[in-house]
This record gives sequence, C-alpha cells and structure tokens, in this order.
Amino acid sequence: MSLSAEIIAVGTEILLGEITNTDAVDVAQALSELGINAYYQTVVGDNPDRLRKVLEIAKNRADIIITTGGLGPTFDDLTKNVAAEVFGRELQLHKPSLERIEEYFKRLGRKMTDNNRRQAYLPEGCTVLPNDWGTAPGCAIEGDGKILIMLPGPPRECKPMVKYRMVPYLEKLSDSHLVSHGIHIYGMGESEVESRISSFAEKMENPTLAPYAKDGEVLLRVTGKATTEEEADAITHPVIEKVCEILGDVVYGVDVPSLHSAAFEILKEKKLTLSTAESCTGGLCAKLITDIPGSSEVFRGGVCAYTNEIKEKLLGIPGELIEKYGVVSDEVARALSASACEKFGTDAGIGVTGYADGRGDERNPGGTIYVAVTLNGKTVSHKVYQPRGRKVARERAAQEAFNLLRREAEKI
Amino acid sequence: MSLSAEIIAVGTEILLGEITNTDAVDVAQALSELGINAYYQTVVGDNPDRLRKVLEIAKNRADIIITTGGLGPTFDDLTKNVAAEVFGRELQLHKPSLERIEEYFKRLGRKMTDNNRRQAYLPEGCTVLPNDWGTAPGCAIEGDGKILIMLPGPPRECKPMVKYRMVPYLEKLSDSHLVSHGIHIYGMGESEVESRISSFAEKMENPTLAPYAKDGEVLLRVTGKATTEEEADAITHPVIEKVCEILGDVVYGVDVPSLHSAAFEILKEKKLTLSTAESCTGGLCAKLITDIPGSSEVFRGGVCAYTNEIKEKLLGIPGELIEKYGVVSDEVARALSASACEKFGTDAGIGVTGYADGRGDERNPGGTIYVAVTLNGKTVSHKVYQPRGRKVARERAAQEAFNLLRREAEKI
Repeated sequence: MSLSAEIIAVGTEILLGEITNTDAVDVAQALSELGINAYYQTVVGDNPDRLRKVLEIAKNRADIIITTGGLGPTFDDLTKNVAAEVFGRELQLHKPSLERIEEYFKRLGRKMTDNNRRQAYLPEGCTVLPNDWGTAPGCAIEGDGKILIMLPGPPRECKPMVKYRMVPYLEKLSDSHLVSHGIHIYGMGESEVESRISSFAEKMENPTLAPYAKDGEVLLRVTGKATTEEEADAITHPVIEKVCEILGDVVYGVDVPSLHSAAFEILKEKKLTLSTAESCTGGLCAKLITDIPGSSEVFRGGVCAYTNEIKEKLLGIPGELIEKYGVVSDEVARALSASACEKFGTDAGIGVTGYADGRGDERNPGGTIYVAVTLNGKTVSHKVYQPRGRKVARERAAQEAFNLLRREAEKI
Repeated sequence: MSLSAEIIAVGTEILLGEITNTDAVDVAQALSELGINAYYQTVVGDNPDRLRKVLEIAKNRADIIITTGGLGPTFDDLTKNVAAEVFGRELQLHKPSLERIEEYFKRLGRKMTDNNRRQAYLPEGCTVLPNDWGTAPGCAIEGDGKILIMLPGPPRECKPMVKYRMVPYLEKLSDSHLVSHGIHIYGMGESEVESRISSFAEKMENPTLAPYAKDGEVLLRVTGKATTEEEADAITHPVIEKVCEILGDVVYGVDVPSLHSAAFEILKEKKLTLSTAESCTGGLCAKLITDIPGSSEVFRGGVCAYTNEIKEKLLGIPGELIEKYGVVSDEVARALSASACEKFGTDAGIGVTGYADGRGDERNPGGTIYVAVTLNGKTVSHKVYQPRGRKVARERAAQEAFNLLRREAEKI
C-alpha cells in the first residue's frame, strides 16, 4: 500500500516572506526516505477559518497530514485547536506535558506565564510526541482513516522532532526500509561529478544515486530499499566503494557532517594538535572547529589578527615580510600558519589572509584569499578567488583550509 | 478593494525536499510590499491532474494566482498547458519570444533543440512577461475575474522576474501600501513580551503588531497599511515609540539585523575599538563581528584561548587566578575581557569562559558560561545557563556578550 502525504506549514511570517519554509524541506526529505509520496505542500497563516479549510482539503486528498508551526504559547498559535475541531476531538490537559514545561522553565530560571500552560492541552486520544528541544509538545491523531501529525515550527525543534518522533511513528506503517548514505565531495563541480559517474549510475535502480550541489560542495546520496534495514544498508556499500574509487580524493568522507569535521577526525585519530591564525576569516576557522563537541582534544587556540600591528605583535609576522609581499599574499598566509604552530605549540596550523570583499589591491581583487596549512613543519597553500560576496568568500576560504588540512593529515 | 493572492510552486524536487522553495519568499515579500494579502502558498509536483486541481482551488479562493516553475523545455514542464486549460485558452506560438530564445542560444553558442521551441507557446490573449535572465518567458492571463501570473522556477530567473515584471504589472491594481518595521528584543521571552503589550496590542487593527520568537530573541513586527507609503509608515511610528517605552532597554534596535550589528553600530558611532578573548565560544564572537562589512573600523582582533596554558601565555591570565576560582568563573571571564583590551590596545573587550556542553564541574553544570565586557576600564559580567546543547549555548553566550556591550556603550 502506498501512502500519500501533505505537509502544511502554519505561520503568517511565511506568507509575508519573512522566513523561509525550511521545515517543509526537513519533513519532505524524511517522508521521501520513508517511501511516502508527499504530493502537496501548503502554507497558511495564523487564521482559524483558513487553517480549517486547508486541513479539510488535505484530509480529502492525503492519507497523512503533517503540520508544522502554530503550537506556541501565544494567542495566534491555533493549530491544535483547529485540528482537534476538524477531527472532532476536545483538547484536554496532558499532565506529563505540563510537568515537562514547568520543569523546562525551572531549569532556565525563567518565569512561566499562564499562556505557557496552553501548550500542555492536547487533543483527546492523541499520541503525544514529547519535545525535548523546546516547550510545545507535538502529537499524532488517527481518525477518519487519516493520520495527522503536528510538529512545532521553530526549525531547531522541528528538525529533531521529525527525526526522533515523526519518522519512528510513521516507520511502523511502512513495509519497506530505506537506508541512505551521503558521499561528500569537495573540489569538483556537480556536472563533472555527474559525468564521471553517469555510465555507472544510469543503469542503477536500487540503490539510487542522487547528486545535490550545496555551498561549494557536492553530496551524492546513495539510497537502498529492502524489506529489512540490514539488507537495505548492505546493497549500498558496493556502490559507495565504486563511487569513491571513480572520484578519488575529492571525496572527503561518507556520512560526515562537514569538511572541518572530517579534518578534525583525522587529526584526532593521529593525535595531532591544531591552532589557527586568521585575518579576513576573523575567527571563522576557530569557530568551526570548536563547533565540534570534544574539539579541545585537537584544538589549542587561535589568534584573529585583524590589523598588521597585531600580526606583528601577537604572531611575530615580520613587518618587512608584510611590506615586501603585501599583507594579502601567499607568503603572509604561510607565515601565519607557521606562526600559529609556534605560538600555540601545535603540530598543525591554519593561516588565512585576504580580502573577503571590497576592491582589494592591484594584484588581488576583492574575494581573493590565501590559505595555508603547516603540518609538522611543512607548509602548503592555496589561493581562493570567490567574488560572490563576503559571506561566501569567507566560507570558501575556511573550507579550503580544512580541505588542505585533511589532505595533508591523511598523508601522515 | 483588498486583493488576495495565492502562490503556487510547481516542482517535484520541492516535494522531495531536494530544494527549498525560495521563490515563494521572493514572491511573498513583493506581494506584501504591494499590500496584497497572500493567504495561501501551495507546492505541487509536475503532474497535470494535481496541478489542475490546485489551480482550481486557488481560482476559488484567491484573486491573484502566481505560479513559479514548470515553464522549462522538458516534457514535465506543464504549467502553461494546464493553466491555459483551466482558463479556457489555447496555446499559440509567440514569435517575439521564439526569436528571443533563438537569439539566446546563438549568444551562448549552444545548439537550440526542438523542445526549446515549446517555451515560445503561450496562452492566447496573455500579456507576455519577457525573461531577460533565461529562456522561458513568463506571462499573465486575466480571465473569470482573476489574474494568473506565471514565472520561471530557477531562483536566479524568478527573482528578477518578480522585481521587474510581476511587481510593475501588479502595481497598477493595488490601492494600498504596507510598511513594516521590526522591533528587536533580547532578554525577555515571547510570552512575557506579549503579556506586557497585550492590553495595548489587542485593540489595534492598523497598524498590526505581531511577535515572532527566534534564536533566543523576540521580533515584534509593526505593519501599517494606507493609500500611500508615507502614510503607512507614519502610522507605525507612534506604535514603535509606545512599545519601546513599555519594554524599556530589552529593545536593542528597530530594523537592525542582529545584536552584534547593533553593538557594532554603537561602537562605530562612538569611535570605540573592540577585541575579544574567548574560551568556549572559540572564535564565535570574533566571527560574528567580522561577518559585518567594514568591521575593521571597530575590530582589532581576538584570541581564542582553548587551554589554560594559552590563557596564561598569550593573554597573561595569572595561573593563580585560574587555580583559585576555576577556569570557568566570573573572575576569569573578567580577566579575559580586561586582558583583551590590554593586549590589543582597544577601548572595549569581550571575555568568555564556560562549558558549552558536557558535565561541567561541581559548581557549574554543562551549559554554564560566564561572559564579561570591559569598556574604558570598567568591567561588567553575566552568567548564562543554557543546557540545550553546545550550539545554542555558544550562540546565547555570544548574544549575551554583544548585549552587555551595546548596553555599556550606550551609556557613554
């Protein structure tokens, strides 16, 4: 039996274009991996009449309805009330949820107001989906041959609720299991990746192979389908091996969250320590590595030297070097990474200098960034040119730094 | 007369969660600025039956329908065909569009295939909206008292088509203008904000006042509606003043992008310089301030000191102080911010130390972070407790630091 779904986001701020409906992406990906066809997505504002009509339409054309948003404590959060009405249910106080909310406020040392109590009222006979990431619980109703699942709107709550509450709830309904693995690629464009694997990928039906380009990287998703999870997983492995063989070392990892995580894991495994000396990335490399729990096993610290004076004073970069080559130069990047190793007493150092935006100088237009990595006394470097604005240029420079780092560390 | 609109995105890749529906954001923002209420957004796949049903529903509940996507050259691009059918029109070859497409391919030196000709077939009697950013022309149909505007799907085409084709087309129809301002609040929860302004906000119809909670902050959006932009703007100002008066200094700005931008602007205005000394935030504060173009006017640099040794060696934090109070302590945070000022020669310094996650120690559970700000020799500090994981804890600590900073700088 193939089930169909509709995803409904509730929130006037989406209709006004103030926020992007990223919850729909998270829910859609999860449904897709479960093999459930989501044929429609709808967005409606915090308006009970329109929400009711939207829910009624969805009830007519889908087996499963997933709502996101409108579970908060304020007067315009009405998803539960309207949904309960559409499914002919009353709202009842759910004591364990009230206790969770009270506990939550106690832990944060904040005062709980009366309207927070409203969040603990849920449709009678529902399955409560506890929210460990915020105050509003989710819930599932089964009735009239349909399933309705309500999830909170804030993405940092919705995302884990999808993974740990919605998916397990729906998995019971599906008779096949899907297992996905992600092959992460840096340093090769999507069309190049596609043309290299095309002869191999085109014949495949199960597992499937789908490329996604994002933030200067390519992700190849390998998805196997079988009656058990083990079987689904097993059929993906020969495909992953084959792809890694074809693409070579532009593959920086399988199922790893990011380039900096991949670099971190290699350093950790080889017991190598790291420090940073950043100019235009202004702490971004240090921030990224310390995003990782347990980063202190590898990372000792970093300097963000935003002026030439600081580069000289704190990092001992000779003024003559800066004068001779210019502060935005391969030479200064290499001096920065070497200096980081020395000042922090680490095995590896990252050095970055460049123009994230602006006009640049005669040799280096805005968007030119030099990245260097020193490892066990040996320094390698790379020039990044990314004129699409400050944010993108800084991100590419950091990716480049961690890519150089993981490549060098792999050789050791 | 107030017109209502529905935005329909056509594309299976959105339903699968492969891409985010950012076209809807662009269209929604433009409609909102035109004073047109978009009450619904829908996403449907490249399927003629479901697309027909969705268009029929939209025709019943909206005056204006905007579609994005499905105008391409391939067999699954069917928006024009289905829309023409729903509005009882035939498709006709539009010669100027065919010439534009031929010209486009000639310019790119690429061969034009037969299916590209299909893009030049448009509903009879439509207004053609020429596409200068791609091959598929858009168009508008007026019929049955409704307006349908079809735009291409790729965001780099859709965005300019919205601005230069859709908006001018619709501007002729609208008799009202909307102006919105955002009041940004840090340090007070959404429900507390709401209960404080409720007696004042509930009676209001124009302007409207809507709260949004996001990332530890609250945004209050004030939206005025009037026949001219000036009038719409004018009626929002007394409301903004009143809200700022009620809420006091938890309001960190109106129409500012973030706490760190607010702090940056005050420092810049008062010609004050800044440096950072971070432990558990690991460069996040430096990264945030250097996200801002022109940050070098204020920011000199920072140290990320991830070990006690580095805190002593690079920042001169006395070992005895760390031993006496513990490295995670108010005292060490204050020593860090003072040391930043000294080492970098700045007016202001941020110091952060804490446990972003993990078990912590006997006095400080994981999620406890001490934040200090030194300004002109005076130091203030604050303890943050945020047990919802590493990412959130680090973000809150940085927000707290920039909030302390902007409060202190405002006093000067």
